Amino acid sequence: MEKSRSKFPKVVVIGGGFGGIELAKHLKDKPLDVLMLDKHNYHTFQPLLYQVATGGLEADSIAFPLRKIFDGQKNFRFRIAEVTKIHPIKQTIDTTIGEIPYDYLVIATGSTTNFFGNKRVEHFSMPMKSIPEALNLRSMILQNLEEALLQPSRELREPYLNFVIVGGGPTGVELSGAIAELRNHILHKDYPELNKDEMQVYLVEGLPKVLQVMSPQASAKAEEFLKDMGVKVLTNVNVKDYDGKQITLANGKTISTHNVIWSAGVQGQVIEGVPKDSIIRGNRIQTDEFNRVKGTENIYTIGDVAAVITGETPKGHPGVAPVAIQQGKQLAKNLVRLVNNEPMQPFKYFDKGSMATVGRNKAVVDLHKFRFQGFFAWLTWMFVHLISLISFRNKVVVFINWIGSYFSYNGGARLIIRKFIREEIVNDEHLPKAED
Amino acid sequence: MEKSRSKFPKVVVIGGGFGGIELAKHLKDKPLDVLMLDKHNYHTFQPLLYQVATGGLEADSIAFPLRKIFDGQKNFRFRIAEVTKIHPIKQTIDTTIGEIPYDYLVIATGSTTNFFGNKRVEHFSMPMKSIPEALNLRSMILQNLEEALLQPSRELREPYLNFVIVGGGPTGVELSGAIAELRNHILHKDYPELNKDEMQVYLVEGLPKVLQVMSPQASAKAEEFLKDMGVKVLTNVNVKDYDGKQITLANGKTISTHNVIWSAGVQGQVIEGVPKDSIIRGNRIQTDEFNRVKGTENIYTIGDVAAVITGETPKGHPGVAPVAIQQGKQLAKNLVRLVNNEPMQPFKYFDKGSMATVGRNKAVVDLHKFRFQGFFAWLTWMFVHLISLISFRNKVVVFINWIGSYFSYNGGARLIIRKFIREEIVNDEHLPKAED
Repeated sequence: MEKSRSKFPKVVVIGGGFGGIELAKHLKDKPLDVLMLDKHNYHTFQPLLYQVATGGLEADSIAFPLRKIFDGQKNFRFRIAEVTKIHPIKQTIDTTIGEIPYDYLVIATGSTTNFFGNKRVEHFSMPMKSIPEALNLRSMILQNLEEALLQPSRELREPYLNFVIVGGGPTGVELSGAIAELRNHILHKDYPELNKDEMQVYLVEGLPKVLQVMSPQASAKAEEFLKDMGVKVLTNVNVKDYDGKQITLANGKTISTHNVIWSAGVQGQVIEGVPKDSIIRGNRIQTDEFNRVKGTENIYTIGDVAAVITGETPKGHPGVAPVAIQQGKQLAKNLVRLVNNEPMQPFKYFDKGSMATVGRNKAVVDLHKFRFQGFFAWLTWMFVHLISLISFRNKVVVFINWIGSYFSYNGGARLIIRKFIREEIVNDEHLPKAED
Repeated sequence: MEKSRSKFPKVVVIGGGFGGIELAKHLKDKPLDVLMLDKHNYHTFQPLLYQVATGGLEADSIAFPLRKIFDGQKNFRFRIAEVTKIHPIKQTIDTTIGEIPYDYLVIATGSTTNFFGNKRVEHFSMPMKSIPEALNLRSMILQNLEEALLQPSRELREPYLNFVIVGGGPTGVELSGAIAELRNHILHKDYPELNKDEMQVYLVEGLPKVLQVMSPQASAKAEEFLKDMGVKVLTNVNVKDYDGKQITLANGKTISTHNVIWSAGVQGQVIEGVPKDSIIRGNRIQTDEFNRVKGTENIYTIGDVAAVITGETPKGHPGVAPVAIQQGKQLAKNLVRLVNNEPMQPFKYFDKGSMATVGRNKAVVDLHKFRFQGFFAWLTWMFVHLISLISFRNKVVVFINWIGSYFSYNGGARLIIRKFIREEIVNDEHLPKAED
């Protein structure tokens, strides 16, 4: 069992994402002892994962080792561990490195891909929520281009060269834009034997428009940008089935493809032991205005997995980085108030706006007072993402990569370091059959 | 079957290392059709692999995609493939992507780790000859430091904190220096709970000195540098056995360790079908002075796997990058001479000297007329390696990393992107028992 070596109350933070890091940073030099657990030893800058998946950036430029972030913070410790169960009465958690006691527990586990129960789609399509997943996706894309080279006819090449991205949120829009750029600017250089017209990129969205969360102007312009780049945007249609070779849409349309990327939904990563009636739609954990889990005394949750339900926010806040960061900071202050016997302050979200990029010179930005699209939006998007990256080194490396890509139209290394091997289906009886 | 689409004679090059690349580049615009095969889609700059293994550099800064090197070279094609057999009479090769015919075949497969038949050592120790191997090694090192944190006593921490590098050639010297720097400069920052004195680095060499291939001054100074940095250099002693927990030396000394890195030897990567009597010591392929494989008409070999045996070089040339590069260039010229019905020219190696680095400000350089060690040697080593890297981007990224490390004493990201999982020994009966 991990023992605390101070007399201060012990805060255990599960997860080193935006929220967990912000919380732990703001507990520096406070009368609390912080233990952070994460299954990885690094923080992932998720907004740029799609550039890792499409070979524009390397993993290390958007990942930062958690230990290094807290160099010199004396009340902070970190362990690589997964948490398997919470015991609220005993005030301990079961983990892969043993049982750990806590005085305050903070669940900052974030979200994972939601396939809405479709096991076949889950089995055959690619998610992109972590660095290993993004690297798998990259290997798959590049391996399928290599495979296309070996096929003797257009018909046989088709499934290797059709790319279908499901979900028209920011991730789906950014991914389909990046794959379209691969097609438009890279394909003829790296694979001169392949014909650009044989490679197709589809974006499938169930709602009437892409970027539903943004302004109507942003949605319309993003769709226009995508179409300019050659992406086939299919709105108002859901995915019915995917068997690894062909995707079937609800309107009956089929596309022959080995490349389906699923960015159509997320769900909270809940840990066993959280009170069952605190878990709401989308697998999020309901909290009060202090981010305290409903039905508990000293368990808190922040970020994507948390739903702060109040009169003003009946559905909680959107699952985006600024919410996690603001909740982490606020909770740190509240925990300090708690140990000082002061009253906690309720969480208030300050929404700075949102943005998404489609490709070179093409982005959409919604701020409070300003909405703009195109080149200046693209510069804004790059600037905001650059300054948000942790560490000077990452900022410099990403900046150099972007500058290089801008001038060469041929950025990124596109290395297949580890081959992606799709899990063989020796016996697919455990998968439900396609519906008729 | 891969068909050639020109009437020019077809050169198939197996391997995209230093030799294969140089050969293919020098065949640009020549009346030959080049097909390069490699199991990876990138070239590896092997001299800096040890910095990837120890977390100082990321894989992408020393890897470069082969397709990009040959952008625009019209007589060049590349395929990811492994070659399983050569049929010299039919003039075809069997590969993982089918049978491929050739007019000229060039074997540039390089070398792999040589465990000298010790299956137990091979099973339990880590090689470092490729990027996936270097990344595995990095994950293992970092995971064992994490594991040490969880152990309650010094005795239980010991095997996780003892590092044994076997083989005192340039790779072994550079690796032990880099791990010693991790201990001296990083450990107290990333793992303040661990005591530096509990981490030990051993370098084991069977010969009386390290860097046997270099001058006596270089060997002596390298050993002095290593000792200054706290490395325990054990010379004149071979490894007898390693069972994954304890390494036993020929003199009876044992060291409790989960970290054994094997850099004690290499052997050529020979492909089935090469005439048996051309294969000599160290699994190298004997050639004449034109790099033509003994007993064949149109099969050539260059680089680490080749042994150009003449009166002047009865054992062939050393397995280093400059030899491969010079052989690649010379063979390209000779193949052009062949198709023009001109006589080939024999290969002559121009030895520019050799160098190795031990750590910050500590390197040894042997040139023709000059031998020097220390700070200026270290600058020379960095300069030569920087300019040898392929692509401007890689030069810039490595340079920034080195500058950053120099000033911060805390370079590199040390990410565990993919966990290293040691193959479980469910049944180790297939491994020979330790000798008594």
